[in-house]
Amino acid sequence: MEKIILGIDPGNYSTGFSLFKINGKKHVLIGSGTIKTHRKKPENFKIIFESLDKTIKEHSPTEIALESSFYGNNPQTIIKLGEVRGVILLLSAIHNIPVYEYTPQQVKNAITGYGWAKKEEVYFMVQKLFNIKPETNDEADAIAVGFCHCLTKNHSKG
Amino acid sequence: MEKIILGIDPGNYSTGFSLFKINGKKHVLIGSGTIKTHRKKPENFKIIFESLDKTIKEHSPTEIALESSFYGNNPQTIIKLGEVRGVILLLSAIHNIPVYEYTPQQVKNAITGYGWAKKEEVYFMVQKLFNIKPETNDEADAIAVGFCHCLTKNHSKG
Repeated sequence: MEKIILGIDPGNYSTGFSLFKINGKKHVLIGSGTIKTHRKKPENFKIIFESLDKTIKEHSPTEIALESSFYGNNPQTIIKLGEVRGVILLLSAIHNIPVYEYTPQQVKNAITGYGWAKKEEVYFMVQKLFNIKPETNDEADAIAVGFCHCLTKNHSKG
Repeated sequence: MEKIILGIDPGNYSTGFSLFKINGKKHVLIGSGTIKTHRKKPENFKIIFESLDKTIKEHSPTEIALESSFYGNNPQTIIKLGEVRGVILLLSAIHNIPVYEYTPQQVKNAITGYGWAKKEEVYFMVQKLFNIKPETNDEADAIAVGFCHCLTKNHSKG
């Protein structure tokens, strides 16, 4: 059965997304992008919501792969990340799409073979594997989390 | 000018809301309720979103008063609170309603005169001032935050 994966890397200033088509053991990157947000906050949520809602309506993803980091000692940073997550989880509920979460270590390990790889290494491997130049690190991360999900799901099904 | 205030106390298991009408220095509680959510997560966001969206469409609030706590040492608790906040901030952006945030201390101080009052004391004062028996503490807190906003805004305008 064919699946469409929507990979998402939520960030405070921009949110990356990727689209993969999985057919059996084959997976193909079919799209990716960056949703850029201004500093003025509440508008950001509308921009992210409407942009991802449009992408979901256009491509009908069957699964969402989300990079989830719960790091940092600053509650303000954590709560802001939570706010963007809330919008993504709302979309998953509205469109009834299951969400699979991956830690940054799992994502980095999947794409570079090393869980503590730097952002540039992730970008480099994404560029190399998919012959694409992502506009932002968030977009590269979103491709990496989609790829991580493809590997995990294919692997788990033998 | 008449204003309608939507007070919100977001919680993990239930979200309370209140509606106040302000006309000059007079404010009247015109409604309140509790949005109960199940444990299964993504559905919660849809329930909160649709319920508040309906309330906003019915009552056209001009301002949102939000109780904002950034406490606790547990990042999981903080991120969950952030997720519910994200849905509320999204609604404020969609409907273009400004959000005013108040700490639990400000809210407790406004309703009981003491910033470290207990939940039961807040409930008691809400019951006494508005002659109402809120269904939950979250609903009582939402009435208190709406009331806090009414006092603050009226006070700030002399």
